[in-house]
Amino acid sequence: MTKPLANDRLLRALLRQPVDRTPIWIMRQAGRYLPEYRATRTRAGSFLDLCQNPELACEVTLQPLRRFPLDAAILFSDILTVPDAMGLGLYFEAGEGPRFRDPVRSLADIERLPVPDPEQELRYVMDAVRLIRRELDGSVPLIGFSGSPWTLATYMVEGAGSRDFAETKRLLYGEPQAMHALLQKISAAVTAYLNAQIQAGAQAVMIFDTWGGSLTPRHYREFSLAYMQRIIAGLLREQDGERVPVVLFTKGGGAWLEWQVEAGADALGLDWTIDIADAAERVGDRVALQGNLDPSVLYAGDDVVRAEATRILESFRRPTGHVFNLGHGIHPGIDPERVATLVETVQRYRQP
Amino acid sequence: MTKPLANDRLLRALLRQPVDRTPIWIMRQAGRYLPEYRATRTRAGSFLDLCQNPELACEVTLQPLRRFPLDAAILFSDILTVPDAMGLGLYFEAGEGPRFRDPVRSLADIERLPVPDPEQELRYVMDAVRLIRRELDGSVPLIGFSGSPWTLATYMVEGAGSRDFAETKRLLYGEPQAMHALLQKISAAVTAYLNAQIQAGAQAVMIFDTWGGSLTPRHYREFSLAYMQRIIAGLLREQDGERVPVVLFTKGGGAWLEWQVEAGADALGLDWTIDIADAAERVGDRVALQGNLDPSVLYAGDDVVRAEATRILESFRRPTGHVFNLGHGIHPGIDPERVATLVETVQRYRQP
Repeated sequence: MTKPLANDRLLRALLRQPVDRTPIWIMRQAGRYLPEYRATRTRAGSFLDLCQNPELACEVTLQPLRRFPLDAAILFSDILTVPDAMGLGLYFEAGEGPRFRDPVRSLADIERLPVPDPEQELRYVMDAVRLIRRELDGSVPLIGFSGSPWTLATYMVEGAGSRDFAETKRLLYGEPQAMHALLQKISAAVTAYLNAQIQAGAQAVMIFDTWGGSLTPRHYREFSLAYMQRIIAGLLREQDGERVPVVLFTKGGGAWLEWQVEAGADALGLDWTIDIADAAERVGDRVALQGNLDPSVLYAGDDVVRAEATRILESFRRPTGHVFNLGHGIHPGIDPERVATLVETVQRYRQP
Repeated sequence: MTKPLANDRLLRALLRQPVDRTPIWIMRQAGRYLPEYRATRTRAGSFLDLCQNPELACEVTLQPLRRFPLDAAILFSDILTVPDAMGLGLYFEAGEGPRFRDPVRSLADIERLPVPDPEQELRYVMDAVRLIRRELDGSVPLIGFSGSPWTLATYMVEGAGSRDFAETKRLLYGEPQAMHALLQKISAAVTAYLNAQIQAGAQAVMIFDTWGGSLTPRHYREFSLAYMQRIIAGLLREQDGERVPVVLFTKGGGAWLEWQVEAGADALGLDWTIDIADAAERVGDRVALQGNLDPSVLYAGDDVVRAEATRILESFRRPTGHVFNLGHGIHPGIDPERVATLVETVQRYRQP
């Protein structure tokens, strides 16, 4: 028997049910812009140590909620824990970002990849989810997440972050069947991973397709969207009698909203390169929208933060179906005071 | 009295005049993927030495034309020569990309910036243009170019390449009037620079808006497109009795083609994230289109290069108004043999 949520605005808005005001959470709200996060990170040792320690992952997940009255918590983790659990050997080079010891380059490599059991190889994530739910104690919902298959594939094939995805594109164009085999395997892993998060207590889940925008339109459908659709079709959509909403977010994918609507998600994430009024018109009443303030607005002063946030709120002219967020993760150099102003602005606003 | 062009397909296609076949050139066709370029670069010393030496700049401009029967030459230079001439002190840190010794951060910095005389501070570029025209000897047209004001501003304010444009966005959101003052000054410099290139012999010019796609739609119009429009309005559009076509290219700007059409360019560049058939339908017969093969296709084999190039040619269902190109600059790791295959494929193709 689960305690009912004290604040269920996020879930209601994602499901386009009536809300008293627009809910807000912030991508990467638990992160480097918070001094308390940096302190915990130092205490943990490495970034990976932090991800793999449920108590510390829980602590940093809750940190932004102690500062700001956010309408949701999001699990602190990294999208690359899944490929790590698939045996690629994730590590972080100082100042260089993520690396894999054993990147995937051939069909043989792909066939060798295991589909991990999330309660075994990714147990530390599930333990964090359970712990966070307990600590949240019904205050706000907890969002779980995963990277999209295409996005995870770029890291798994490159072995690192990339600008032009040379090896990944080489595989896509040169050996499309091998790429499909890889994406299928990742999709199976992600489906199991998100379902395990839902069973452990995640009340909504989001799929981050950070690099879908690097594809041609045709390849976006074939190599990214199709696999997200497959994952969504395989997700538990109800847990403890409550609907579990799914958010799909392709950065740089604003041109393809009409296709994204078909993927079966309850909501679509928007980056800041699209006008939310146009997006709302294009998707109609078939999905909710999440976004879409330029994260760089937070570099400016409070007046600008208020004006730009209000502009988005005013553009979204419906009584529900909007979750306020940034169009991408918050930058590490942002002053937390700007976030306080943003949250206050959104929470004071009422649709006329 | 100028010699008439032996091959004027590029100019004709940009002006939507009849052509026997689709012309092709390749962004960054003179570049690191060519061993002869790397040899000249080594001989020159630094990249900047190469840009500033008209004889060597001419040599590398012509190198790709000796290998491939391309339909145009493009001036070898760098978009950052203009801010360098404005006194910012361009230098290159080994393995780190471009840097400016004196980035622009305040209105006082901006007001202090001179608008350079292209025949003085950028004389080495004009000398290269004159030399290249002489060496081309009427074989194919020479394309001149500049970065867009917004794109140049990002480097001038950051002092280097950037991922999130923190300082530039801080200025845009926090001090929009200062940003406008900067963009006005850059626009004046770019207009003079492109007109000097035209007078020195550039037969078409292209404006590269590499970072326009980092803006919100509203800010794209206000801070990037408006200034490109202003520049285009100030360009010499005829030289030696010939029309000088202008190409405008915003990477990541496919959602904004309808606005770009209004800027007065003869052609719009497309990256690979948009279907050229859709783009053609959206712009109608008001502009030509240039693009839009994913540069990463060249990592695959010849069969894939042929198939993907043919797909684009077939999608563009009009008798003229298309210039084949990549959707962005060619990657340094590409095998020149793939380029040979691409050029041959495009040049053999005939619109049914």
